Amino acid sequence: VTISPPTGALSMAGIGTAGLGEVLGLFRTRPSLTRADVMQQTGLSRSTVNQRLDALLAAALVVPSGEGSPTGGRPASRFAFNCDRGVLLVADIGATGMRTALCNLRGEVSAEVERTIDVASGPQRVLSAADEMFGRLLAGAGHTAAEVHGVGIDVPGPVDFALGQVVSPPIMSGWDRYDIPGWFEGRYDCPVLVDKDVNAMAFGEQRSAHPAVGQLLMVKAGTGVGAGLILGGEVYRGANGAAGDIGHIQVTVENADIEPVCRCGNTGCVEAYAGGWALIRDLRAAGHDPATVDDAVNLIRTGDVTAVRLARRAGRIIGHAVADAVSLFNPRVVVVGGQLARIEEQLFAGIREMVYRRSLPLATRNLQIVAATLDTRAGLVGLALLLADGIFAPERIGSLLQRA
Amino acid sequence: VTISPPTGALSMAGIGTAGLGEVLGLFRTRPSLTRADVMQQTGLSRSTVNQRLDALLAAALVVPSGEGSPTGGRPASRFAFNCDRGVLLVADIGATGMRTALCNLRGEVSAEVERTIDVASGPQRVLSAADEMFGRLLAGAGHTAAEVHGVGIDVPGPVDFALGQVVSPPIMSGWDRYDIPGWFEGRYDCPVLVDKDVNAMAFGEQRSAHPAVGQLLMVKAGTGVGAGLILGGEVYRGANGAAGDIGHIQVTVENADIEPVCRCGNTGCVEAYAGGWALIRDLRAAGHDPATVDDAVNLIRTGDVTAVRLARRAGRIIGHAVADAVSLFNPRVVVVGGQLARIEEQLFAGIREMVYRRSLPLATRNLQIVAATLDTRAGLVGLALLLADGIFAPERIGSLLQRA
Repeated sequence: VTISPPTGALSMAGIGTAGLGEVLGLFRTRPSLTRADVMQQTGLSRSTVNQRLDALLAAALVVPSGEGSPTGGRPASRFAFNCDRGVLLVADIGATGMRTALCNLRGEVSAEVERTIDVASGPQRVLSAADEMFGRLLAGAGHTAAEVHGVGIDVPGPVDFALGQVVSPPIMSGWDRYDIPGWFEGRYDCPVLVDKDVNAMAFGEQRSAHPAVGQLLMVKAGTGVGAGLILGGEVYRGANGAAGDIGHIQVTVENADIEPVCRCGNTGCVEAYAGGWALIRDLRAAGHDPATVDDAVNLIRTGDVTAVRLARRAGRIIGHAVADAVSLFNPRVVVVGGQLARIEEQLFAGIREMVYRRSLPLATRNLQIVAATLDTRAGLVGLALLLADGIFAPERIGSLLQRA
Repeated sequence: VTISPPTGALSMAGIGTAGLGEVLGLFRTRPSLTRADVMQQTGLSRSTVNQRLDALLAAALVVPSGEGSPTGGRPASRFAFNCDRGVLLVADIGATGMRTALCNLRGEVSAEVERTIDVASGPQRVLSAADEMFGRLLAGAGHTAAEVHGVGIDVPGPVDFALGQVVSPPIMSGWDRYDIPGWFEGRYDCPVLVDKDVNAMAFGEQRSAHPAVGQLLMVKAGTGVGAGLILGGEVYRGANGAAGDIGHIQVTVENADIEPVCRCGNTGCVEAYAGGWALIRDLRAAGHDPATVDDAVNLIRTGDVTAVRLARRAGRIIGHAVADAVSLFNPRVVVVGGQLARIEEQLFAGIREMVYRRSLPLATRNLQIVAATLDTRAGLVGLALLLADGIFAPERIGSLLQRA
């Protein structure tokens, strides 16, 4: 079972349990509420609020809370979302390693495990490794598989979000159209959310560092280059889940005799110049011998002239693509993360130069271009929050009550 | 008074008139409804629905309707949105002319007038001309200024949507930060919506030809090149209203010795190669003498070799930018309109070639690239629908009742 994307307008529509999902949503975003608070916030009648609250209490989705909780037979006056009614499991799968976590139902991480693994070893090995880690996380906290309310997986490739499948990924060999939710069927009786890693990072950065910002562009500059978009405060995935593919925009490079070939098969892509893999290629051509992207970053940070020149060029090239994205999306904040963001000085200078040179004054006058704050944990943190939002989306209220 | 952008999540929130705006919204999207329909669709109690309906009836926003309307003292059983409670006025201002229309409150055009006028003659002359046309439209239909519920203006330049101001426009000299809503104050006692022309076109095309499509990219290829975005079925404007600026993306052109200078002051922009003004420049350099973009289009349609070569190049260049936009937004439909869309053959071939060459398979497998259907009326039609949505947005319900 995958989680379908949240619906848009007229979310009040529905039959029988009308407004129930929205009442639960209120509890998820507030520490606690009285019956009167719920009436005032929703416009529902006293009797409807009482019915809805009874249903949520019966399902243990909401519990009596704090001050005014029952003492001496007096009925509770305040209620809160029951974030310990179950747990969530998430795995942030990268090119060469993964992080997994156990979370409460607010999407707050309570325990984490990480390990190295090559994503190209294929879905069965990688998902088995994730599930083995999930097992350890559950056992360590004294939980069972039956208590898992949702599983979230993010991957470094394009995802058809509705189907939970990776589609034609450049670096994830063996994963094309693999049924990830299907693999978890029988293991956990809950929805499985599959998303692109940089979407999870974008959501993590927005919720933790820029909660008031509706329009945010997250650029991940690591081995490859990708982007995640937050529009109206939610992840924007496009018609098929392919939105944010900034790494394969074609760029103009002054004094480039030939356009380098990209991993995607095209030439002249952003990441064919500015991705970590391209920096390794060019540093090797210049006589250095970095084995990893981190080696390349460390070389740049030593101040080696060739390395610094390449870093500046990478900054301008990523900046070219960011300028295009700023012209098209007009975000309020651009967050830059990934291993290359550790270069900082040259990278950010190049990005800022190109954005201010190319984009409209109206688009840049309030624009902030900042570094990511969650570092390597952005994906994991964002994925857990995305999963919690998906599980408790108003349209899933029926399934939630059935489970109770 | 400008119309503020619609709010997002938890639109149920509100005090006193909670749910009233949503009940009105239901009536706007359905031919007619019974009390039971409203209860079922909203989950509001019978007594709340009765109160809300009474308020809407008292304000004449809703009226008894069709079958079951009062006969012999029996209370009405069906009700409908009162789209003739007042009128809307819209003006679609182009570079060299404008179209104005009188519309009912559903945003349906009932009368239209057009005239030529140079937008560079400045806001006071252009807005005076629009208002003179508004006056004729009102008089012709027997309406007064007091019946005008909303005024909508679209312009060929970047608009700060929240303020209703044009900001640093490349071709609208004299309009920078001019207070358009302020100009109409005292003339009409109603909100004034100001938007970018291509946003209105995008909305018009989506509502009339692609109503089920949530993600749509509208490209206008005329004198300049611009884009409007529909995301989640609504116009997406970005943080400041600058979204969709596709015409000033920098493109790579094979065999171009020097990058042409753009009207915006940069070099190598899409419209510096592929805008109507650039085609005129290049056709003149090749010995032709087109006076207008339509002349250039007609020359291309005659099959002149130089002209066709330039048209193909324009198609590939616009296609390069559309491919970037497809990679970033993953729309379901790309609509191409504007005067250059009349070239069709060469233009669409170039656009399709670049999009399928550059964008991810996941982003293009269900993508449609189609011609606009509303031709030169797209802006006017879309603007009227946008204005109707703005006027009757749930958060404006208080103002609507006050006006009654």
